[in-house]
Amino acid sequence: MARSPVSSRQDPDQEQFLTVLSRDEALARFEAALFPRAVPTEERMLADALGLALADDVKAPIDVPPFDRSNVDGFAVRAADIATASEALPARLLLNRETIACGVAPQLPVLAATATSIATGGPVPRGADAIIMVEHTQPTEDDAIEVRRGASPGQFISHAGSDIARGEVLLRAGTVIGSREIGMLAACGIALATVARKLRVAVLSTGDELVQPGHLLRPAGIYDANGAIVSAAVTENGGEATFLGAFADDEATLEAVMREALATHDMLILSGGTSKGAGDVSHRIVNRLGAPGIVAHGVALKPGKPLCLAVCGGKPVVVLPGFPTSAMFTFHDMIVPVLRRMAGLPPRTEAQVAASIPLRIPSELGRTEFVMVSLVEAEQGLVAYPTGKGSGAITSFAQADGFISIEALADNMPAGSEAAVTLFTPHVRVPDLVVIGSNCTGLDLVVGALFRAGLTVRSIAVGSLGGLAAAKRGECDIAPIHLFDAKTQSYNAPFLSAGLELVEGWRRMQGIAYRPGDARFEGSDAEEALRAALADPDCMMVNRNQGSGTRILIDRLLGPARPDGYWNQPRSHNAVAAAVAQNRADWGVTIAPVARSAGLGFIPLTEEHYDFALVSARKERPAVQAFLAALATPEIHAALERAGFSRPN
Amino acid sequence: MARSPVSSRQDPDQEQFLTVLSRDEALARFEAALFPRAVPTEERMLADALGLALADDVKAPIDVPPFDRSNVDGFAVRAADIATASEALPARLLLNRETIACGVAPQLPVLAATATSIATGGPVPRGADAIIMVEHTQPTEDDAIEVRRGASPGQFISHAGSDIARGEVLLRAGTVIGSREIGMLAACGIALATVARKLRVAVLSTGDELVQPGHLLRPAGIYDANGAIVSAAVTENGGEATFLGAFADDEATLEAVMREALATHDMLILSGGTSKGAGDVSHRIVNRLGAPGIVAHGVALKPGKPLCLAVCGGKPVVVLPGFPTSAMFTFHDMIVPVLRRMAGLPPRTEAQVAASIPLRIPSELGRTEFVMVSLVEAEQGLVAYPTGKGSGAITSFAQADGFISIEALADNMPAGSEAAVTLFTPHVRVPDLVVIGSNCTGLDLVVGALFRAGLTVRSIAVGSLGGLAAAKRGECDIAPIHLFDAKTQSYNAPFLSAGLELVEGWRRMQGIAYRPGDARFEGSDAEEALRAALADPDCMMVNRNQGSGTRILIDRLLGPARPDGYWNQPRSHNAVAAAVAQNRADWGVTIAPVARSAGLGFIPLTEEHYDFALVSARKERPAVQAFLAALATPEIHAALERAGFSRPN
Repeated sequence: MARSPVSSRQDPDQEQFLTVLSRDEALARFEAALFPRAVPTEERMLADALGLALADDVKAPIDVPPFDRSNVDGFAVRAADIATASEALPARLLLNRETIACGVAPQLPVLAATATSIATGGPVPRGADAIIMVEHTQPTEDDAIEVRRGASPGQFISHAGSDIARGEVLLRAGTVIGSREIGMLAACGIALATVARKLRVAVLSTGDELVQPGHLLRPAGIYDANGAIVSAAVTENGGEATFLGAFADDEATLEAVMREALATHDMLILSGGTSKGAGDVSHRIVNRLGAPGIVAHGVALKPGKPLCLAVCGGKPVVVLPGFPTSAMFTFHDMIVPVLRRMAGLPPRTEAQVAASIPLRIPSELGRTEFVMVSLVEAEQGLVAYPTGKGSGAITSFAQADGFISIEALADNMPAGSEAAVTLFTPHVRVPDLVVIGSNCTGLDLVVGALFRAGLTVRSIAVGSLGGLAAAKRGECDIAPIHLFDAKTQSYNAPFLSAGLELVEGWRRMQGIAYRPGDARFEGSDAEEALRAALADPDCMMVNRNQGSGTRILIDRLLGPARPDGYWNQPRSHNAVAAAVAQNRADWGVTIAPVARSAGLGFIPLTEEHYDFALVSARKERPAVQAFLAALATPEIHAALERAGFSRPN
Repeated sequence: MARSPVSSRQDPDQEQFLTVLSRDEALARFEAALFPRAVPTEERMLADALGLALADDVKAPIDVPPFDRSNVDGFAVRAADIATASEALPARLLLNRETIACGVAPQLPVLAATATSIATGGPVPRGADAIIMVEHTQPTEDDAIEVRRGASPGQFISHAGSDIARGEVLLRAGTVIGSREIGMLAACGIALATVARKLRVAVLSTGDELVQPGHLLRPAGIYDANGAIVSAAVTENGGEATFLGAFADDEATLEAVMREALATHDMLILSGGTSKGAGDVSHRIVNRLGAPGIVAHGVALKPGKPLCLAVCGGKPVVVLPGFPTSAMFTFHDMIVPVLRRMAGLPPRTEAQVAASIPLRIPSELGRTEFVMVSLVEAEQGLVAYPTGKGSGAITSFAQADGFISIEALADNMPAGSEAAVTLFTPHVRVPDLVVIGSNCTGLDLVVGALFRAGLTVRSIAVGSLGGLAAAKRGECDIAPIHLFDAKTQSYNAPFLSAGLELVEGWRRMQGIAYRPGDARFEGSDAEEALRAALADPDCMMVNRNQGSGTRILIDRLLGPARPDGYWNQPRSHNAVAAAVAQNRADWGVTIAPVARSAGLGFIPLTEEHYDFALVSARKERPAVQAFLAALATPEIHAALERAGFSRPN
């Protein structure tokens, strides 16, 4: 049986973790233990050197072009001979008895009043100092040409060495080889390059609960995302990753694997499962793998505090935190610079953009805090929305454009701040259409149609009220809403302010979802079902997050009652259905299409109007027009109906 | 013997070339002949799918997390039980007899006034709606805990499906798979992805003069750069390139190779040698390979006019122009969009930056003209310098940051214009140090030292006067100059204006370079040598470009004489030495280190002062300080002396 967290708390191994270092101090200790060191090199054929860094300066072994070269088809001449040539008084040049094609070395000099036929790329013969284009000459019958215009000396000639001069430094050590560098090397005849070889990085995951993708998920198991994501991020940063798999907390097995990995690789990266026990085991092993061992364990980063940095026998050993996003922040912030430096690669040039922060973001004092953001374009510039699913969420990372960091000494970033956003990819592609507000599985159908038409859509789910606020600030094109106004007994329209207009969406049935066969609900109407649920103290509900339209509906339904499970407040229709389907709750309120796709029973409550608040000023934008057009197509109507949504009357 | 360009001019095959299409019309015809078409797909393991585009939408097969998950080590509780807990009045909760570690499914519900020990990542048991951290509890001796603070419901719980909800569209078709996307797929347990497979592109070069890198260059031969650069550019754009080699103008062989390549690949890209003959052969063959054949031959692009676009049996066949830069512009502008679209990849998001143009750039009316530029940062923003070596130069391409295009209807871009620069790489890294002015092989030694210290240096050779002008405009940190003032009989200092200060560099001996053993020069002093050269009408000189300091020296030396070769005006010391060494000229003026490294005889003329005009306002920048420090090191002094430069007295 696994140890209880209570006992692990008193474990002396934990003490080191209590010495939390600042980010800069931790990185400095890590680098001091690793550098200076030689960069491992290897010889590669040009075609296999793409993306690698040159290990040495490369000097040009030859001149490029290797000879004075003609840039056109025509005749090699002496410019002085045709200096006074004109339509009225053409110059006559006797043709030398050779034709210089590409690859043909000239044998005869161009003497005064003569010319030699030459092809583009041919070597200019001695004596000639200009090329005249064939179009500007007239052959005569006695092996001569007439020229009716002058030429400046050097015309249409690329001089030997004018592109690359023998002996000049062509490319410097550390230059990353792209297609342009390959062109320069090839033009000089260089076929082999000495490059910094890729760093060999062993990646392994630890944790009893981990299941590899492609295998069946057992109860309480989770899929190992870190193994794949760390390996891919190593590859993206020029390393060569070997993923060794996920290992349970068996100390002997794990130590053997780690020793073997370290012997055959340049670097070892573990990512802990989320279990503390797993972490303890790997840290104990790391400290036995070689001097100096752990140099930092516990860094004042949020997320990322449990990061452990070690150097064992000259090789870095890293234990990343278990949550994928924590693992990725710390990997990008602390490991990538070291990995690139060890591999002779230049520092990653991470593009930053300035953006304003629309909402106050709280932050923990004393830790450098990373906050992922999505960028949208408003009139006054870029706006950075926090992608707020928390550090455990893999989707926050994948859907964010980048992150801001809030320094350790600040306890928040105020609304309206200007912040530097570090981009995950080196350029932002601002989406064609921005949709902020309530989410709906029906919206996916419309967005999918736009996506297939080549438009990019960013959809940020912040609830109906949040969407209306964003629309008023001009931060989105469209805010999907489903808000009931009790006074007018109508949906959505009463909530629109100036500058917004309503576009009808679709209707969706809200109702009570329950597991099929549950006698408390089966065959009941809504009133009976609710009465039965509240009467049974063992009957547990699942709620929704505050601010959602569904929550308003639930609170109206319950009145003052607070049944068990009321405080379980997930953020989506899907999460409610999942809680019921998985027996973590017995009932919840969700929309019919979601209940149906989860295989649940469903008792209708009320048909909601899911509509769109359109920012009038942005209505003429092509993507908005495309959205409105898609909404009106029979294909979308049919798809919505198949999914269980109905059209406005 | 190769055909003369005069006869090829009348070749009927050439007629099509006379129908020059606009860029847009050519691209439209090419795309119309290719699209719509299905994207070829394949299944790949996640780890091998990095950088590929998803072929289909991917829906989440499971909820992530798959269960309500604890985010901390602690106890699963009912929030209502501890709502009123405080230091004064702790709540007491009886421990349930299980401990939920990672991967362990809970067996017991959390009933009122009970708690269950749970580890980070463990599944929350039924009944619990909050986790309280182990640090905020106190164990009692009778298997209970005391809690001294409340918890909000949902605290430290990630609800099932809150990250990814089963059934939601996780990633859309066309999304390029990066490490973040791999993380999302792995988290859902997806191990195989259906992706658009890489497009198989056959690349071959044609031309009698081509020699593959790594082989000995024969007379009049040039190295095949296009084969390597096109293959690499295909790889960089997500294709899979097969380079088939370079082929001479043998029509039967070439046709067999092309037919075989087209049968086994998705696309065929030829790059002509620079010879017209080679081009004719491949175009004739292309028209026999399948319908519709050539759709555009001759496009109003500069450089790039000879581009030939064909579609044969549904597959694109492209003949790129022979000069590497022409080949690359047309490849990036016209071929990449088609290649990516065929491969199901999104359009390349090419970053553009705005920059001002410091000098008037002339352009040809009627053709869209591409001009490569280097970017430097001035006070008022980015400045784009044309990298002016002409379309044949591979270095212009490699050293440029990007390009501007001048529309077909304009005959120039005026100085001071704002232009959009399309970047070759998606982000600009403005160099740490910008050096604009006269070039010197000695400067390479100093720059190399800075580069090794991790600084990036951009060195643009525009001559001394051009450098001074750039320095006055604040576009560089340092302008290397060697200008002689006849009035004061001194170097450099008289040319400095306000805001610039002089830093001493080194001395370099200018002199007459000649082939060793040439009796006209051997053993002579400068005056004798010049007399001998001018007396012999067969004795040919090589000059330097106007505006260079060396040209001023040569013109002073020659007086009114204009010997043969005067109009051969290459741009570098190295090119002068190459012309003499290769017997294209008999003498020229260059600096001693260059003459020596080319193995030439050398008659000293005058010792020049090669100094640096420093922009005072930029003196304190770290890179400038590093430059000044490097200049003062004994290592650099020794290296300069070894190379043949001498220090100021």
